[in-house]
Amino acid sequence: MELVASNKVVGGWHKRYRHASQTTQCDMTFAIFLPETANSGKQVPVLYWLSGLTCTDENFMQKAGAFKIANELGIAIVAPDTSPRGENVPDDEHTAYDFGLGAGFYLNATQPPYHTHYQMYDYVVKELPNLIENHFPVSKARAISGHSMGGHGALTLGLRNATRYSSISAFSPIVHPSACPWGIKALSGYLGDDKTHWQNHDAVLLIKNKQYARPLPMLVSQGTADNFLEEQLQPWHLQKVATEQNYPLQLEMCDGYDHSYFFIASYIEKHLKFHAKHF
Amino acid sequence: MELVASNKVVGGWHKRYRHASQTTQCDMTFAIFLPETANSGKQVPVLYWLSGLTCTDENFMQKAGAFKIANELGIAIVAPDTSPRGENVPDDEHTAYDFGLGAGFYLNATQPPYHTHYQMYDYVVKELPNLIENHFPVSKARAISGHSMGGHGALTLGLRNATRYSSISAFSPIVHPSACPWGIKALSGYLGDDKTHWQNHDAVLLIKNKQYARPLPMLVSQGTADNFLEEQLQPWHLQKVATEQNYPLQLEMCDGYDHSYFFIASYIEKHLKFHAKHF
Repeated sequence: MELVASNKVVGGWHKRYRHASQTTQCDMTFAIFLPETANSGKQVPVLYWLSGLTCTDENFMQKAGAFKIANELGIAIVAPDTSPRGENVPDDEHTAYDFGLGAGFYLNATQPPYHTHYQMYDYVVKELPNLIENHFPVSKARAISGHSMGGHGALTLGLRNATRYSSISAFSPIVHPSACPWGIKALSGYLGDDKTHWQNHDAVLLIKNKQYARPLPMLVSQGTADNFLEEQLQPWHLQKVATEQNYPLQLEMCDGYDHSYFFIASYIEKHLKFHAKHF
Repeated sequence: MELVASNKVVGGWHKRYRHASQTTQCDMTFAIFLPETANSGKQVPVLYWLSGLTCTDENFMQKAGAFKIANELGIAIVAPDTSPRGENVPDDEHTAYDFGLGAGFYLNATQPPYHTHYQMYDYVVKELPNLIENHFPVSKARAISGHSMGGHGALTLGLRNATRYSSISAFSPIVHPSACPWGIKALSGYLGDDKTHWQNHDAVLLIKNKQYARPLPMLVSQGTADNFLEEQLQPWHLQKVATEQNYPLQLEMCDGYDHSYFFIASYIEKHLKFHAKHF
């Protein structure tokens, strides 16, 4: 692991590292926030934050305004990149913002030319936590959250790995990618057109089919002024299956908020306290 | 004024506007944060935030994590751009990061080709507050703060307009531009080589020469791990003249912090509360 940047913040530390990933077969960069308590050798729990389309490890760390509360709660935060990167990593042939680089969708691609590097599911669920838990003063208490495409990641990875996490949350998530344009493009591009392979990557279908080892507390915040609400995000699908399956979803519609980090900055305290309660 | 963006945040609003400036003879963009209390018609005080080299109105608004506390304190924040912009605005002939676009240094240039547009002193002290006070539910209570080049701006504009502001603060400011490379380049380029014209734009000299109508409470925070500390920032010069003149400066050296917005995010609460106390 190579240290790329290190900044003291609210008494703790923000650090960026680059490492050669076995899973994605390229160099990956991630960021970690370590609260002040981690300096004294105390093992702290970790919130994994998955960002949205076009983001890197930097967006959340620079814009969410999460550090003060995370420091008070004694929570570390890890933010991976949103896709493999590098000269050898294939991008969308039309270099779209919603597929390829910056748009890994937190799944393991099966379709060439993407299958070699686009293995973000295994990277986020396995390789990255192993790396974090071997190198930093963290416990094995983990929670997962994310925004938009990263909200989709948090929901699906959390549901499928319910014994690895203690709680799940999401801001403005893509809840039903099988049925919205962003999702259909990504799932067909990375997994092929056979929709039976899509089910494991769709939070609505995972809950509908009860594909989870145990129900985890789940908090979803969605702004009502979000430009992507009607066409891409459609949280009512999640509410419907959660109600049907008695899944412990807490969905809050936030009046007047949009899809930006200004929304995340407004509600991150609530999400951090939610996860802190369940570690 | 044209509304460029509008985002609800922490119950208040972040908005960006573009307007044709008489002072800088080009379109200028600024951002304003309006706390929740402003929605109910209450007139709120305003903190003017001046950003550093290469920044625009966006850096502080996206990265400082100031909104929650500002909202609780009922303070509006206005962030102007750091220079005039546009096709007709001359840049540094070598397009350097520390002169020309993004580097207006909050002074009125006298040297061609810069003198036509680079009138950031008048823009920030006069035109912008007039605009703000005519269009938003704000009072005439004003404070001024900034970072690096913007810290220089906050100190010099605050000192020279002590009846217009109630308090001054700065993060990592250029306190003595007459005697550091960034400052010498800017002052000579915008004002010419006659150093008698530089004195009004140098906080150390303004205090040394007692060029202020009244002493305002002044808070300066400086990280000890700041890469620019020794060569460019040199806060000890400010401490020395403040002690000599009995100027009410509170300089705090912040152990381990660097020049980034991670530092600002760590101390913005203290600065906001400082200004709130003096409005």
